[in-house]
Amino acid sequence: MVDGAALRSLSSGVTLEIAELETPALLVDMERMERNLDRAAAYAGERKLRLRPHVKTHKSPRLAGEQLRRGAVGLTCATPFEAEVMAAGVTTGGEGDRRNDPRPPLDLLLAYPPVGSRRAARLTGLPANVNIIAALDSERALRDLAAAAAVSQREVGVYVEMDLGMHRVGVQDASSLVALARAASDDRWLHFAGMAFYPGHIRVSVEEQDRALGEVSERLDDAIASLERAGLKPPVVSGGSTPTIWRSHEIRGVTEIRPGTYIFNDRTTAEIGACSWDDCALTILATVVSTAVPGQAVVDAGTKSLGREPLRGTPGEGFGALFDRPEVTVRGMSEEHGLLDLSGTSWRPDVGETVRIVPNHVCIVVHLADDVYGVSGDRIVDHWGVEARGR
Amino acid sequence: MVDGAALRSLSSGVTLEIAELETPALLVDMERMERNLDRAAAYAGERKLRLRPHVKTHKSPRLAGEQLRRGAVGLTCATPFEAEVMAAGVTTGGEGDRRNDPRPPLDLLLAYPPVGSRRAARLTGLPANVNIIAALDSERALRDLAAAAAVSQREVGVYVEMDLGMHRVGVQDASSLVALARAASDDRWLHFAGMAFYPGHIRVSVEEQDRALGEVSERLDDAIASLERAGLKPPVVSGGSTPTIWRSHEIRGVTEIRPGTYIFNDRTTAEIGACSWDDCALTILATVVSTAVPGQAVVDAGTKSLGREPLRGTPGEGFGALFDRPEVTVRGMSEEHGLLDLSGTSWRPDVGETVRIVPNHVCIVVHLADDVYGVSGDRIVDHWGVEARGR
Repeated sequence: MVDGAALRSLSSGVTLEIAELETPALLVDMERMERNLDRAAAYAGERKLRLRPHVKTHKSPRLAGEQLRRGAVGLTCATPFEAEVMAAGVTTGGEGDRRNDPRPPLDLLLAYPPVGSRRAARLTGLPANVNIIAALDSERALRDLAAAAAVSQREVGVYVEMDLGMHRVGVQDASSLVALARAASDDRWLHFAGMAFYPGHIRVSVEEQDRALGEVSERLDDAIASLERAGLKPPVVSGGSTPTIWRSHEIRGVTEIRPGTYIFNDRTTAEIGACSWDDCALTILATVVSTAVPGQAVVDAGTKSLGREPLRGTPGEGFGALFDRPEVTVRGMSEEHGLLDLSGTSWRPDVGETVRIVPNHVCIVVHLADDVYGVSGDRIVDHWGVEARGR
Repeated sequence: MVDGAALRSLSSGVTLEIAELETPALLVDMERMERNLDRAAAYAGERKLRLRPHVKTHKSPRLAGEQLRRGAVGLTCATPFEAEVMAAGVTTGGEGDRRNDPRPPLDLLLAYPPVGSRRAARLTGLPANVNIIAALDSERALRDLAAAAAVSQREVGVYVEMDLGMHRVGVQDASSLVALARAASDDRWLHFAGMAFYPGHIRVSVEEQDRALGEVSERLDDAIASLERAGLKPPVVSGGSTPTIWRSHEIRGVTEIRPGTYIFNDRTTAEIGACSWDDCALTILATVVSTAVPGQAVVDAGTKSLGREPLRGTPGEGFGALFDRPEVTVRGMSEEHGLLDLSGTSWRPDVGETVRIVPNHVCIVVHLADDVYGVSGDRIVDHWGVEARGR
């Protein structure tokens, strides 16, 4: 939603109330977001871990700049468009664009196999001041990347991706890991920049994580030892997600983490214990549009703004919950309808009332929006676009 | 994805192959889409049903124009933005804009309660050549609409929405139906234009629909009789969805249908028997980006392009299936990864190979895209934007 009146008022310094927004609208509590950013930066600093936040969560160069300003070593992207938007728009704290920035050039990881007719070419077509790294797990991807790097005549780093239990992408054994690392190392334009894994399968409650973290550590020991025996000691070992963020230092060998969700957090992050409910910075402002069917209230946030993401790693029901009344969940949805389950509350909202929903999975919610409003309490104090939403 | 090179080639008359597209990309088989449009128009004509297609599925004024050109009486929208884009962009067959169109003005139904701080005002702010109708189920919505109509000094029609088994929105009994119809009828700017319902709960196989259709017919008999006794015979009785489209004439009293999905169809529509597999016009072109994990291939269409929509009304698994190999389903997803289940096939794709996925729920897939390519076989012959995707 592009809300012209709201933007004009903001830029003229007039404070708006969230009640004046058309719904559904995304709200980010600025204090909570800044606290989330600071906490992760402090953790990474204390534990001597490189923090390379994943921009898929916010898709905003401005928020990426806030992450870099707090010491992130670079950014992680999932798509070439995310990388292009970050390369074009990131500053590190409002001090002008990167051409006048005395700090090292922007370091961008595409944590996605650079395969496809144009993906590798878009990547190596990024501006010259960007250090490019790509994660890959196949000879084909390495070939495509090497060819694009040669055409662009630029050096590109390679993280070889290994599967440590997620079973999504990643080489299955140390010999494949070494072979790809060697191929990258031997290429004229590529170099072996590290190994990567994604512990996205560890999305269970903190109490249940011990065993899974131990398993990942053991597999990582073997993988790093194999690389070292081959004379290919990985400069970086990159892993770590938001669900495991505060335990990243317990994964032996890890030197870099790539959390995304931590900037906003969401219901899943809170339910598995990786943040508190009060750390959920992003909510969807929605309006009750019908209370005609007994036992429920219908709001104007459905699948097309909330997504249909279940809770994972935790048994809760529903697709989101009200920030002020977590016992009220979105139990069902149509495209533009969300059905609030009123069975666990005596609260009976009126048609026209607004609510704020904490989504199960915030990355999907941001991807479904064009605009985000920064709020402090009930006041709108900021606004930015989801600039890297498209392709 | 805005593919500048592709667009320039198309406009200069050069034919592109789909293999040249960056993925993921939405493809619409033009022959199948036209056949779907023609078939529904012929059915509505034969059965003397008013066809008011729901634009939420395609969000494109150009495709809405194709529906109107085939005899649709008007359009159905879910959001004010959809209505605004249709009002601004719809022509009825490429013969110029509506200002020079000798046919009746555009008839737009907002099939959504006009509740919220700005929704009703946006609706009554539509161009003067638009006939506006809104569906509602509460006094509050009627009051908001009446107030906005008074401010705009324009007549607005009201469909009173009744719940006939979907249990989403809609008044629960005939007395509430009559009360809202009378309130609309008594208002200076509103008028009672009909009653509406949405049989979205009837998404079962054709064999199982008989009982549900019978129940809806009986409840409709009572509702219409109550309105007639009150001197408020409904000018239109509007219902009907894609799953029930070919049986709409069996719902007693229905005079108008509002299917959306039928223009493209999808895996759900095919699985419940409301279309054949060959009627699925929209597919997602995706590239295999990893085959490292045994038993699966990973493609670059995940939740952020495919949505996470289960099959409904039919027991099948997965979030989509390959058009050419329906036994291969998308069994899991991350945001940008789709995991093809290879357990039911001897096919083993290579990294770099492209596939075409039929989604479970096409409306969500279109909402996640900016661009659609019209294809004939493997050739790209057309292109349009998802103009009403935002808010």
